[in-house]
Amino acid sequence: MTTDTTVSTEEAPVRRSGHHGYVHGYSDTEALRLGDQADTLADLLHAGTAYPAGSLVLEAGCGVGAQTVHLLAASPGVRLTAADLSAESLAQARARVSAQAPAADVTWHHGDLHELPFPEGSFDHVFVCFVLEHLPDPVAGLAALRRVLRPGGTITVIEGDHGSAFFHPESRAARRTVDLLVRLQARAGGDGLLGRRLHPLLTAAGFAEVTVRPRTVYADGSRPALVEGFTLRTFVAMVEAVRAEALAAGLTSPEAFDLGLAELRRAAGPGGTFHYTFFKAVAVNP
Amino acid sequence: MTTDTTVSTEEAPVRRSGHHGYVHGYSDTEALRLGDQADTLADLLHAGTAYPAGSLVLEAGCGVGAQTVHLLAASPGVRLTAADLSAESLAQARARVSAQAPAADVTWHHGDLHELPFPEGSFDHVFVCFVLEHLPDPVAGLAALRRVLRPGGTITVIEGDHGSAFFHPESRAARRTVDLLVRLQARAGGDGLLGRRLHPLLTAAGFAEVTVRPRTVYADGSRPALVEGFTLRTFVAMVEAVRAEALAAGLTSPEAFDLGLAELRRAAGPGGTFHYTFFKAVAVNP
Repeated sequence: MTTDTTVSTEEAPVRRSGHHGYVHGYSDTEALRLGDQADTLADLLHAGTAYPAGSLVLEAGCGVGAQTVHLLAASPGVRLTAADLSAESLAQARARVSAQAPAADVTWHHGDLHELPFPEGSFDHVFVCFVLEHLPDPVAGLAALRRVLRPGGTITVIEGDHGSAFFHPESRAARRTVDLLVRLQARAGGDGLLGRRLHPLLTAAGFAEVTVRPRTVYADGSRPALVEGFTLRTFVAMVEAVRAEALAAGLTSPEAFDLGLAELRRAAGPGGTFHYTFFKAVAVNP
Repeated sequence: MTTDTTVSTEEAPVRRSGHHGYVHGYSDTEALRLGDQADTLADLLHAGTAYPAGSLVLEAGCGVGAQTVHLLAASPGVRLTAADLSAESLAQARARVSAQAPAADVTWHHGDLHELPFPEGSFDHVFVCFVLEHLPDPVAGLAALRRVLRPGGTITVIEGDHGSAFFHPESRAARRTVDLLVRLQARAGGDGLLGRRLHPLLTAAGFAEVTVRPRTVYADGSRPALVEGFTLRTFVAMVEAVRAEALAAGLTSPEAFDLGLAELRRAAGPGGTFHYTFFKAVAVNP
């Protein structure tokens, strides 16, 4: 369980320089959490995404490479460009890929996804995971990515939606604490409820054949590995990680936060259940 | 869209006589709504449920037969006993089955699922859909069903969870109106958030090998039939149907209800999305 107090509420942060001042985390603890999360969810999130060998693929907002290694595992032989705004994250991503996929063909790009220095139509496919939720204008971000995607090429977008979380036992205190993720994301200019918006956002950005499907995680006592890997080490850890930020912002009290967190943890205890929905979209650049 | 004001918040009502006074609906409009809903959701809910020909199957709380016809379609040759507390519902179920599955072997039983007059272990399989949410003590109901299930036989339980509903555009007014379903269900002695509890409930009732999986409905503009069949004709219709009951109970005002309903309908409009999770459980009588 992370006790880091400066981490972001989600992974793969992309920030428009000068626009927003929300707190990112680049600690070893946070990188470990992101790796845990990605490994637990790899099958769920990456199923159905396999690019032909030789494809030119862009991963925009690769962060610490937590998803990058799974993308490469599912699509051997692609020529990947992995971009991120954070040089520190890129270095971690590079180390992770070197360790787990040493033969992969990856070009690392340090820069803003809104201003990628690639010619129009440079890529066959674009992959974006847990990025749009951080952008103040996700349609603008998607339009910038569409520019570098060839006509007929696909974009794949994966996002969570914190409003999809529900649990047993139901608890008003736990719900208020979970809602802090959404409120902090909103204050930082993002949207913690973005998953449900993927279809209209991609449509507004000019993509065609937009297909969105939910990818649901449900954990109960019959699946202890998922309770540990998702409920506790992914979701509860993500909530716990914003404690200091939420207190500093005056959105909660230590007592209220800790009560909510304790009640949320009951979803991972005997007789508890936990549910969360990710959304995965695929669309085409017409 | 139903405008019936006396219907229940959900289908297949089962009431313990003398215990609870919540309002049921047995109107033609309501029966039509239940049929629409069942037809839209049949693949989602019934997939994976197919009993061998000759099996002795009990459907407890068959209501107007909306699920019964799908059960029979997926399991030709079973010997079905369909039970319900309401003679009126049973008559409708009988008519529906006669029309849609005239060759089916069905015994109709009018009675309370808690007090079924069948010997222990009478059935190979038990099927229960949208029933437990209405019971004041779902563990007692499940235990009564386990009594008539043979050792090694299975129970299949399908339930919704109104707390799983979320939508775009997000709206506090819509959310409050949806929450009325849960509040009315609670006042009637039931639980509109029961889906998430299936694993602990079945475990507490003595079942083994309890497996619960979410079955998620997600509708956006790319799926107009689902928007019409589920978002509007199932979910919005269900909310709309409790208007008079919610007003009579003093839980809302006409203005607040109608505003919430109007905002909820935007989920079925341009750029809107709607999400709901059902839960399906299968367990064994050890």
